[in-house]
Amino acid sequence: MKCRVCRLPAVIDVRRHNANFCAEHFLRYCRQQVERAISAFDMLSEGERALVAVSGGKDSLAIWDLLVEAGFEADGLYVGLGIGEYSDRSADHARAFAEARGLRLLEIDLRDDHGYDVPTAAVATKRVPCSACGLSKRHVFDRAAIDGGYDALVTGHNLDDEAAVLYGNVLRWQTDYLARQRPVLPAEQGFPRKIKPLVRLSERETAAYCVLQGIDYLVEECPMAVGNKHLLYKDALNDMEQKSPGSKAEFYFGFLARAVDRFDNPDSGRSVLGACHRCGSPAESDLCAFCRLAERSSRADPVPVEFVLPKARHRRRRGERSPSAEAGPPTATVSPQSNGPAT
Amino acid sequence: MKCRVCRLPAVIDVRRHNANFCAEHFLRYCRQQVERAISAFDMLSEGERALVAVSGGKDSLAIWDLLVEAGFEADGLYVGLGIGEYSDRSADHARAFAEARGLRLLEIDLRDDHGYDVPTAAVATKRVPCSACGLSKRHVFDRAAIDGGYDALVTGHNLDDEAAVLYGNVLRWQTDYLARQRPVLPAEQGFPRKIKPLVRLSERETAAYCVLQGIDYLVEECPMAVGNKHLLYKDALNDMEQKSPGSKAEFYFGFLARAVDRFDNPDSGRSVLGACHRCGSPAESDLCAFCRLAERSSRADPVPVEFVLPKARHRRRRGERSPSAEAGPPTATVSPQSNGPAT
Repeated sequence: MKCRVCRLPAVIDVRRHNANFCAEHFLRYCRQQVERAISAFDMLSEGERALVAVSGGKDSLAIWDLLVEAGFEADGLYVGLGIGEYSDRSADHARAFAEARGLRLLEIDLRDDHGYDVPTAAVATKRVPCSACGLSKRHVFDRAAIDGGYDALVTGHNLDDEAAVLYGNVLRWQTDYLARQRPVLPAEQGFPRKIKPLVRLSERETAAYCVLQGIDYLVEECPMAVGNKHLLYKDALNDMEQKSPGSKAEFYFGFLARAVDRFDNPDSGRSVLGACHRCGSPAESDLCAFCRLAERSSRADPVPVEFVLPKARHRRRRGERSPSAEAGPPTATVSPQSNGPAT
Repeated sequence: MKCRVCRLPAVIDVRRHNANFCAEHFLRYCRQQVERAISAFDMLSEGERALVAVSGGKDSLAIWDLLVEAGFEADGLYVGLGIGEYSDRSADHARAFAEARGLRLLEIDLRDDHGYDVPTAAVATKRVPCSACGLSKRHVFDRAAIDGGYDALVTGHNLDDEAAVLYGNVLRWQTDYLARQRPVLPAEQGFPRKIKPLVRLSERETAAYCVLQGIDYLVEECPMAVGNKHLLYKDALNDMEQKSPGSKAEFYFGFLARAVDRFDNPDSGRSVLGACHRCGSPAESDLCAFCRLAERSSRADPVPVEFVLPKARHRRRRGERSPSAEAGPPTATVSPQSNGPAT
């Protein structure tokens, strides 16, 4: 197996491009793919400031690294979600990365700054944890990007993430979500521009990028996401990709090229939003969805993460009592595929 | 397990409807689903004459039976494809069914009537067999429906078929195919109305219908279809359905309800077709695609079916010679998901 570029021994194969690369040329390939995404979709211009939503995982650290390397001014934002030791370890990785490179990492902690954490919100609002988490992250990231005067909010969604979300939205033909599934959402009415510069790289490639760049990322997945539909969709697409390399990229980029515009709905959208009375963010009623969730969750007794892990959820459905008597057990409804910030 | 209707012991469960049925009420359920499809999509009106594309398999015999039971005048059409003993056995089942019920079965044989068979066409035209077969069947069925003055051509596509074709078209965002993937295509410019009254029943249900009705159908699948993409797509959707009953129907009917119209393209379509100089069918050039295929294939030496079976195709790619020196080996390109008549 030889590098496509220099014919030296390769360290990785990229089957959908029918290519193998040595370390040096694989890193160059990753940079080129990100530059190509940024330029093809007009994500970010020279001199613009970006805020990267950072979780400590491979994708968010890779894109932060790639943007800084490409010469962009990019700060990081870490949000403490209160998911037990998983969150502690996430923060360690994010901080270590920023410190080693002299980068600025903003931090917001849901419990310290908003009076709740994700496990508690899940139980208090009867949402599945991924739904409470996504809503919280979207709001905090948006707010910080606006308040900090950043030109764009960057998330680490890679090709596998985007293809899996698309897959879920297509299986149910959720046309509102389909209309908004683009690698760039322009700034509008109090929302920052949102960009996904990793859409041309797969999960495996961002992991390899980190390894080859010596980026020490958190390998474990969020314990609350185990068995969720998003992961099932990834499996289905991986099976397909295995049998037919390139099919995942064809699915996602074919959608952008030939289908997404067909789901535009000029009547929907955010044209009628007012401002949240509490935080000033765009809102459909007096309080935005985040402030409603925060208000309710911050009144509830804290719920330990172990209680909302998939296994625990399953046990509770069979009759165990919830520790938050007021809130009752979370329902087992499906998390919406609204494509919240994966970091 | 008790019947949803009468509480007697059930013989089958239909998980997507969360229902179990005894034999009597399962047969009634099948009839209701077909009636509902026919009426919801305006497929066929009282007194109209239908021609059913019959292969001898479960779907085509079930829909023929169901239409006759519902009081429609429905004749069958069997097309001999020349796929070795598989075709011989198919014909036996189709004839036995028609004879036992006193129904009229038309027969057309590709070799006798058009000078070629499917294996030969595949090699002579370098198409994958499923592509040569689909093109041949479409033409012969359309022609017979028009010439016989039938109001509609009926095919036995079931929910699994339609969902799998949709899945393939969506994975590649083949927008022209998506625009035409409807359970009814109206008659236009020399093409008959085409209807698929089984779209509300799954493969498993049409098989159960046949068993309970005492219909002796051909169980084996076409040997040339083994391993094709259509079957891979069915597997992927079956995995999903297994984990989330109802998701297959949601995918297909959600598409019809909320998406198919978005793929309409008023500029495309058949508005510019002329007539084939040889057969008079609608055509894009002097000869229609069928007559081009028939002309080329009928000049070639006959190819035995064993030669184009998936295994044999694989062997030949590694260097074996084709028996038809003029035509050369078939290429290994992907069969288009044009949703030709499955019978």
